[in-house]
Amino acid sequence: MTGSTLAPFTADDYRARMDRAARAAADAGLAGLLVAPGPDLVWLTGYAPTAATERLTLLVLAQGRAPVLVVPTLEAPDAAEAAGAPALNLRDWTDGKDPYAATAALLDVSGRFGISDNAWAMHLLGLQRALPGTSYASLTEALPMLRAVKDAAELDLMAAAGAAADATFEEIRKVPFAGRKESAVGADLADLLRKFGHSQVDFTIVASGPNGANPHHEVGDRVIERGDMVVLDFGGLKDGYGSDTSRTVHVGEPTDEERRVHDLVREAQEAGFRAVRPGVACQEVDRAARAVIDDAGYGEYFIHRTGHGIGVTTHEPPYMIEGEQQPLVPGMCFSVEPGVYLPGRFGVRIEDIVTVTADGGRRLNNTDREMVIVD
Amino acid sequence: MTGSTLAPFTADDYRARMDRAARAAADAGLAGLLVAPGPDLVWLTGYAPTAATERLTLLVLAQGRAPVLVVPTLEAPDAAEAAGAPALNLRDWTDGKDPYAATAALLDVSGRFGISDNAWAMHLLGLQRALPGTSYASLTEALPMLRAVKDAAELDLMAAAGAAADATFEEIRKVPFAGRKESAVGADLADLLRKFGHSQVDFTIVASGPNGANPHHEVGDRVIERGDMVVLDFGGLKDGYGSDTSRTVHVGEPTDEERRVHDLVREAQEAGFRAVRPGVACQEVDRAARAVIDDAGYGEYFIHRTGHGIGVTTHEPPYMIEGEQQPLVPGMCFSVEPGVYLPGRFGVRIEDIVTVTADGGRRLNNTDREMVIVD
Repeated sequence: MTGSTLAPFTADDYRARMDRAARAAADAGLAGLLVAPGPDLVWLTGYAPTAATERLTLLVLAQGRAPVLVVPTLEAPDAAEAAGAPALNLRDWTDGKDPYAATAALLDVSGRFGISDNAWAMHLLGLQRALPGTSYASLTEALPMLRAVKDAAELDLMAAAGAAADATFEEIRKVPFAGRKESAVGADLADLLRKFGHSQVDFTIVASGPNGANPHHEVGDRVIERGDMVVLDFGGLKDGYGSDTSRTVHVGEPTDEERRVHDLVREAQEAGFRAVRPGVACQEVDRAARAVIDDAGYGEYFIHRTGHGIGVTTHEPPYMIEGEQQPLVPGMCFSVEPGVYLPGRFGVRIEDIVTVTADGGRRLNNTDREMVIVD
Repeated sequence: MTGSTLAPFTADDYRARMDRAARAAADAGLAGLLVAPGPDLVWLTGYAPTAATERLTLLVLAQGRAPVLVVPTLEAPDAAEAAGAPALNLRDWTDGKDPYAATAALLDVSGRFGISDNAWAMHLLGLQRALPGTSYASLTEALPMLRAVKDAAELDLMAAAGAAADATFEEIRKVPFAGRKESAVGADLADLLRKFGHSQVDFTIVASGPNGANPHHEVGDRVIERGDMVVLDFGGLKDGYGSDTSRTVHVGEPTDEERRVHDLVREAQEAGFRAVRPGVACQEVDRAARAVIDDAGYGEYFIHRTGHGIGVTTHEPPYMIEGEQQPLVPGMCFSVEPGVYLPGRFGVRIEDIVTVTADGGRRLNNTDREMVIVD
């Protein structure tokens, strides 16, 4: 995600997104939006600076005013090449000048602004100092669903990323597991994701045996053994849109308990998926999956939320979690990924990306959810 | 920089750094330091979560109190494996709970805190809401020199990273340039940096011909031609410490003007280097380099500061820039990298990492600074 542009979008697409975002901000009572380098800026402008740094880059959006991108002079030529640049006014500033004063001149001095979650604290502090009368809310808090509903072109890209992740699983199930380090299988996963078109690999979790009981274990030096359960969870970006899928495989024949827990998680995942339809609150997806695991007596071992949104990042709103009242809307994309984690023993997680359709849900991952036996 | 630990440091090393940081904070009138995932956290604890996310991870340091790492429950097992973990109290929080309230309970309700530059705005806003009586300053503003002075073990790692970058230049000068895309030479640079021990490649700038006039051009599809000047600027992390060096090569014989501009930049770089000694203000390094270029009538084409600090990141304080009064201290490491950028034509930049010694400076890059002719 370096340089600039997501292939299929034009300056008009970005102009429309910026207009929509400015309107949504006004509707939410905000004086405008302040967008830092990262996924919001990519989505709104197609511009992805090489790195977020101590040099301020900030998109200022306010209804009825032309969008302005405040950008360091050094980076202005790159910004000017972004696909959305024709829809932007670039305002560059030079090392040694105060970029907060320059930005403040664009803002309502007593306004409330939405600001990117991942904007640097030092930049927020600079703005607060330059404009003591302003107040701020994180974009996730103020406009959590800004990027959540995907249009048709975005859904095509999401489906293609999902298909590439599925192709990766179809290949990885054929490689040898027993006797190899988790890190070696993880490297295979990364190679396959790239082979099937990913430009960025965000994670390749290979959590074998007791490591599977830590949902955030990535890969380690543990040598996978015959008899291990192995949680595989992998994804990244393909053509600017995310994949994220998990399957839990077994090296050789599983025990009855292993099979039972795997079946339980599969049923929970199915229940979560079946809960998806327009108008249903996100928390209902979590509740549906969790009820299956609770009812079987494993509730205390399901120690994370059921899912998270995905789009130009692999991890974003909406969240499928108790308390999230946001209704599902056609075009939203998110994971449904219940798990059971038995400390010191093993873990099971099964995950598909699901998009909301007019009358239910559609899975963007479609590999076998039965337990796959590997060598 | 995933997982956890920088090889050579122990829990005692991290404990000492945290003690020193808490003391420096108190001396600066701060109630404590709030450290987010990123280079400050790596340097203070050896802990580098896989990614900074919307889930709060925050180190709380205050003089006279044991360090506390607030961490999501899911990530607590990884945090517990960091080399600095024995010097920390881990306080984990579970999805659905309010991590800001949990953090607030650790803080002076009316204190002023230093907070990592790159802490997410959403986390700062969460803290400001939970504790309206607190105030904040970015770590770079409050304690800019926190990581600036390297100890002997760190200097060894810096020198090794510099030597690896030098080995990279010695190889890249032998590869063919003419007829190849910048991106192909950039890929060679990345391969070489990794071959010589870098675990992370941060940038591989190959800016040929007119692209060289944009100091932040990375690599592109431009095919390098005979007669081009080519700015090479590359670096990353080796064993947790940074490299960053630039040389400007020429494909075939240069013109007189090209040679003159290259000589000028080389003299400016030498003047900047010679200005380095303990007690001298950072801005004097900038002034020394800039004076050479100004005097030759090219001042308007030197459009960035002369240098930046380097350590566990490739880009940090101290900055060699007009206005920076910070005196140089033995053990500081930073770049000296003047350049001249002639729009639409070509650019020249020459850069070494320099460390301050008891009586001057020592270059950590030592390849030829005369113009190297490549094929």
